Amino acid sequence: MGDGGCVRNLMEGMAEFSCLQSPSFVVDINKVKQNAQQMLERCQELGVNLRPHTKTHKTLQAAEISTGKRKQGLVVSTIAEAKYFINGGFTDIIFAQPPSLTKVQVCAALVESVSEFHMLIDNVQHLYMLEDTKLLNGKHWSVFLDLDCGYGRTGAKWDVVGTLELARLIHQSESVDFSGVYVHEGNSYCQGSANEVTNISELTTSRLLEFTDKLECEGIPCPVKTMGSTPSCSLPAQIMSKITEFHPGNYVFYDLMQYYIGSCTLDDIACSVIARVIGHYPERGHMIMDCGWTALDNQSEMSKCVTGHGYIVGEPNLRIDSMTQELGKISAIAGKLDYEKYPIGTVLQIYPWHACATASLHNVYHIASDGVIIDKWKPVRGWVE
Amino acid sequence: MGDGGCVRNLMEGMAEFSCLQSPSFVVDINKVKQNAQQMLERCQELGVNLRPHTKTHKTLQAAEISTGKRKQGLVVSTIAEAKYFINGGFTDIIFAQPPSLTKVQVCAALVESVSEFHMLIDNVQHLYMLEDTKLLNGKHWSVFLDLDCGYGRTGAKWDVVGTLELARLIHQSESVDFSGVYVHEGNSYCQGSANEVTNISELTTSRLLEFTDKLECEGIPCPVKTMGSTPSCSLPAQIMSKITEFHPGNYVFYDLMQYYIGSCTLDDIACSVIARVIGHYPERGHMIMDCGWTALDNQSEMSKCVTGHGYIVGEPNLRIDSMTQELGKISAIAGKLDYEKYPIGTVLQIYPWHACATASLHNVYHIASDGVIIDKWKPVRGWVE
Repeated sequence: MGDGGCVRNLMEGMAEFSCLQSPSFVVDINKVKQNAQQMLERCQELGVNLRPHTKTHKTLQAAEISTGKRKQGLVVSTIAEAKYFINGGFTDIIFAQPPSLTKVQVCAALVESVSEFHMLIDNVQHLYMLEDTKLLNGKHWSVFLDLDCGYGRTGAKWDVVGTLELARLIHQSESVDFSGVYVHEGNSYCQGSANEVTNISELTTSRLLEFTDKLECEGIPCPVKTMGSTPSCSLPAQIMSKITEFHPGNYVFYDLMQYYIGSCTLDDIACSVIARVIGHYPERGHMIMDCGWTALDNQSEMSKCVTGHGYIVGEPNLRIDSMTQELGKISAIAGKLDYEKYPIGTVLQIYPWHACATASLHNVYHIASDGVIIDKWKPVRGWVE
Repeated sequence: MGDGGCVRNLMEGMAEFSCLQSPSFVVDINKVKQNAQQMLERCQELGVNLRPHTKTHKTLQAAEISTGKRKQGLVVSTIAEAKYFINGGFTDIIFAQPPSLTKVQVCAALVESVSEFHMLIDNVQHLYMLEDTKLLNGKHWSVFLDLDCGYGRTGAKWDVVGTLELARLIHQSESVDFSGVYVHEGNSYCQGSANEVTNISELTTSRLLEFTDKLECEGIPCPVKTMGSTPSCSLPAQIMSKITEFHPGNYVFYDLMQYYIGSCTLDDIACSVIARVIGHYPERGHMIMDCGWTALDNQSEMSKCVTGHGYIVGEPNLRIDSMTQELGKISAIAGKLDYEKYPIGTVLQIYPWHACATASLHNVYHIASDGVIIDKWKPVRGWVE
């Protein structure tokens, strides 16, 4: 598509995405609905609840689609998200990050404003902070225990005595309720095949169940066992039906990373960045597009991803070699770059390596249906305010 | 500083930055003024004009400081910046990216709204686009020729016949004025020492002058010879006094990358990210902070930067090993991590590796003077609208 290829519909504001200024972030609404529906059906078949993580899209619209319009049961990555979804009428929200005291104080106000709001903790210090921060009307804090089953980021280790002791302290606390165990198996992102993801999922689930079995022996009720990552929830191991809840997030958009892991097909990727060719440099073998790392994430594993920092739809022989703030360098993978095929102004549609990272760079999402822009979504940004 | 260390001033809204929610982006206004003043004085001594690039900060306030309150003469990286600075009363602006036709059309309106607005081009196709897009009242387009002197990103090569021919076509055009030659020596960023930066600056300048000497021989006036990168303008080679203008941008904030190149001292870095310790994991040897790659850039050259994805002020033995969306993993460089020294809630002030990238992640800058927050700046975001 060249600059001249822009097609505007008679209805105001409706245009093909070749009319968008570049760079722009485009979401294919039909793919979002399909990805969301598949995950809802998968969870229903397995008999587990789906509590979508909102960190990838951060919009009311995608949250509504991914909860099957229930507007209930989310995981959020920031307090800004929590406030936004509460104001948008969502209930039952986990803030999935261990807090400092300053955030506990902000969350105390949120707990008052929504029917269910859950904290995530992995240290007795967190528990003391909650106990020291009184809620109005004798309301209790609801807490999930962040359990590390091998990923090794946050979380109390599943196999150490102290973790069971922490669960007991939460259970015994007079102002805090123990609502369940929360696991994020982020190590599933580092796998190279569906089989390896399954191995991680099975190991994680068995460790989670090992821990909750101990809780049961101790007489500590654990109503919710929630686990989530897009790789493991897209390719669920059979044992995962023994937990109560999945909380993946990325799957609403998917991305090249998930495609390489095997979580989705290339065609399932629901988000892309629109850019244009703006310069030709045949003596150096590349062309330049008007999109750099302010509009497209630069997290690609370049050794794995043959097309570099993204995949230009319909152009498997093009590679995004490098990016600076507002520019990206593109070359041919095999043979010489055919400059006549890509005149200045050529519109490029790029699937990102990491949808969460690329989406976070855009304050406006252009919503497309069958290639026509039909809406704009504005995600929530920032962290607390 | 712990969570309890927050000190609020009697004047409303004034507080030490230990009171900020985390993550937050903080700008030390006194360092900004000092960095700006040094560059202004350096340019005055060398007899060159200073045209600051705004891509790092994207704020009216920093642009006013860095132009010495003249509010005249900027380089911008996006059309959104151009509109913002024109609306803010700035004149004489270069849009430093070769355009596609869609951007030429947007720029045509901008040219009408400001006394001097300059396009950057490096291809005869760009010239044709400008010639085909008529301006009102017989106004001419003003054009800088983007000259590549060895960096190899955009730009027409200084030493090929076609580049001289392009300059001649611009000069002869009836609707386009040739305003000068523009060079970005981005290769100065890849250097490991002040000497290497000087070598690049000398080579770049001599190539620029070689080209403009040819223009002179051809009878093509070249009013402005502008060149810019923070490394070369911070450590200017003597020969650079022979050009007419510098256009660095990063120096207003500086960052760890510039510190490692030798452009600044650690203490010159005027921007930082505030985060808090939120988790302790002694069995894994790390702690976690509430700041990931949505708030701190992940562009650090980890093999070069011993403190990882940033430098925690006052803590040379701490290393930011890795980041995910909202979390960062911190370990000790030598010996064991002393968890008692960093209780949950400890406030961390982090100098970023790349100020342009980190600043671009924040929609609010908290302005500090002597550690007290005195103002908020809101940078312009987006690309065109």
